[in-house]
Amino acid sequence: MTPSAIGADIGGTKLLAVALDADGTVTAEAKVARPDTAEEAVATLGDLAHEWGGDGGVPPVGVGVACLVDRAGVLRAGPNLPGFDGFHFAARLAERTGGPVAVENDATAAAWAEQQIGAARGVADALFVAFGTGIGGAAIIGGALRHGVNGFAGEFGHMVVDPAGPLCPCGARGCWERFASGSGLAWMAARHPSGRFASVRGEAVATAAADGDADAIEVVEELAGWIALGIGNLVAAYDPQVVVVGGGLVEMGDLLLAPVRRRLGEVTFAAASRPMVPVLAAALGERAGALGAALLARDVAAGGSALLG
Amino acid sequence: MTPSAIGADIGGTKLLAVALDADGTVTAEAKVARPDTAEEAVATLGDLAHEWGGDGGVPPVGVGVACLVDRAGVLRAGPNLPGFDGFHFAARLAERTGGPVAVENDATAAAWAEQQIGAARGVADALFVAFGTGIGGAAIIGGALRHGVNGFAGEFGHMVVDPAGPLCPCGARGCWERFASGSGLAWMAARHPSGRFASVRGEAVATAAADGDADAIEVVEELAGWIALGIGNLVAAYDPQVVVVGGGLVEMGDLLLAPVRRRLGEVTFAAASRPMVPVLAAALGERAGALGAALLARDVAAGGSALLG
Repeated sequence: MTPSAIGADIGGTKLLAVALDADGTVTAEAKVARPDTAEEAVATLGDLAHEWGGDGGVPPVGVGVACLVDRAGVLRAGPNLPGFDGFHFAARLAERTGGPVAVENDATAAAWAEQQIGAARGVADALFVAFGTGIGGAAIIGGALRHGVNGFAGEFGHMVVDPAGPLCPCGARGCWERFASGSGLAWMAARHPSGRFASVRGEAVATAAADGDADAIEVVEELAGWIALGIGNLVAAYDPQVVVVGGGLVEMGDLLLAPVRRRLGEVTFAAASRPMVPVLAAALGERAGALGAALLARDVAAGGSALLG
Repeated sequence: MTPSAIGADIGGTKLLAVALDADGTVTAEAKVARPDTAEEAVATLGDLAHEWGGDGGVPPVGVGVACLVDRAGVLRAGPNLPGFDGFHFAARLAERTGGPVAVENDATAAAWAEQQIGAARGVADALFVAFGTGIGGAAIIGGALRHGVNGFAGEFGHMVVDPAGPLCPCGARGCWERFASGSGLAWMAARHPSGRFASVRGEAVATAAADGDADAIEVVEELAGWIALGIGNLVAAYDPQVVVVGGGLVEMGDLLLAPVRRRLGEVTFAAASRPMVPVLAAALGERAGALGAALLARDVAAGGSALLG
């Protein structure tokens, strides 16, 4: 059966695509190495759309990309996607498929999936923050994705939380994602006074912490403190109903989220006058971006408004 | 003629009220010392409403209050309004006037006025930040005020920008308003290496800077850097069309705003991929909160949706 929509997530190393039927069930999935160029990515998606569409024709295609995406669907690519910068992905994909398309930042697409069918299902005001190598984010307010005037809203990782902190590739010092990320975890581990983690990957620290290693737990607690500090800042600004947290770091589960929630309770502004904001683990895993992109493409095809905010 | 609405702003030291005719023109104004208790403030507003309403009956009454206000119109008062905490201002005011009322945070009301009839007139996505003794703020997104789930959104001043910074009365360290405020200006002046401003008020530093004093200009530049840092954080999160800046510090005019705009250009994330966000001086001065409160009350009376976001 022809899918109701196809969605894809283009990250630094891979392209993951899914096909959805009318009920939102995943009926096909593909995972390939990330194409070298944006033009090749369009070709890959076009081929998939024609293949999965079959006799029923090409369904709407959405894509979440690991870079800034402007309101017209032009990529403003960062270091993860060299050569993608300035590519008019929406226009080229629409030419290739001949149908409706949606092109979004990957975290924005993932946020939409979590709000539509995941951890924040049906919540009108939800923030999404993905803690991976860096930080991705998006805000849903009044039930709509809020893109900002250029399409660059939700770049929470580049909010400065320590002007004397480490230099960020963006040029600033002490961006939140210097601390609250996989890179931040490795940085904090390397600085641990024990000297035990000087040349160890973040994953190894997480594993040691899970095994009860006191030094490793200290590092994870420091990471949790920085995550809580930034979420506290977002709560001061947005006062959201929920905060959904995703990304690779959240695979640590309660080892990380328990201290995050505890510290957030301590740092939330006016904590005595409001209930603690629920911090929910993302429910859709690595498929979130592709699912959200498919849902957005379907919304575009239906003349919907999810993309208008 | 009976006003179309009455609005008031209750600050730490004064109560300012205005009456608007159907065109939004101010037809009456009153300024009195701030009532000692919330109950007295309700009585003052009720008396004004009856007096200004005259034979035409009591018009809708709105009020902006210098504290957190929850979605039901209950005050969550801070140090500026001792004894106001927990007072159900909306319910008591409605009892007193018998008509529609709106009760808001003062910066939220001012933001609405600036977006309706001031510096950001007609702009769908605008942030408002007031730099006074502390920081007030509000976000208008998609043309609606966004209050957050508890009504506490827009507390930008309590976003932490330096975890090693000075202690804030809220309990955290390095809140943005420890730096980007009148208190911050005095703090930075006192620490200036010249030692010349050790016991000088912020206003004196501003005056000296306006007169070309190089040391004072250094202090104002430092203040501008902190203002720009926080606005840069908000731009990363919201990507707004404009940022309207108000509050006492903005009375310095371009002496402050020129370096703020210059520094913001340097710290804006992805500055090369977007136009510089316009930083506009607020247009409505000390009346902004009262005007916004009146407009919100009129909106409530008309069954409008400004308050729903």
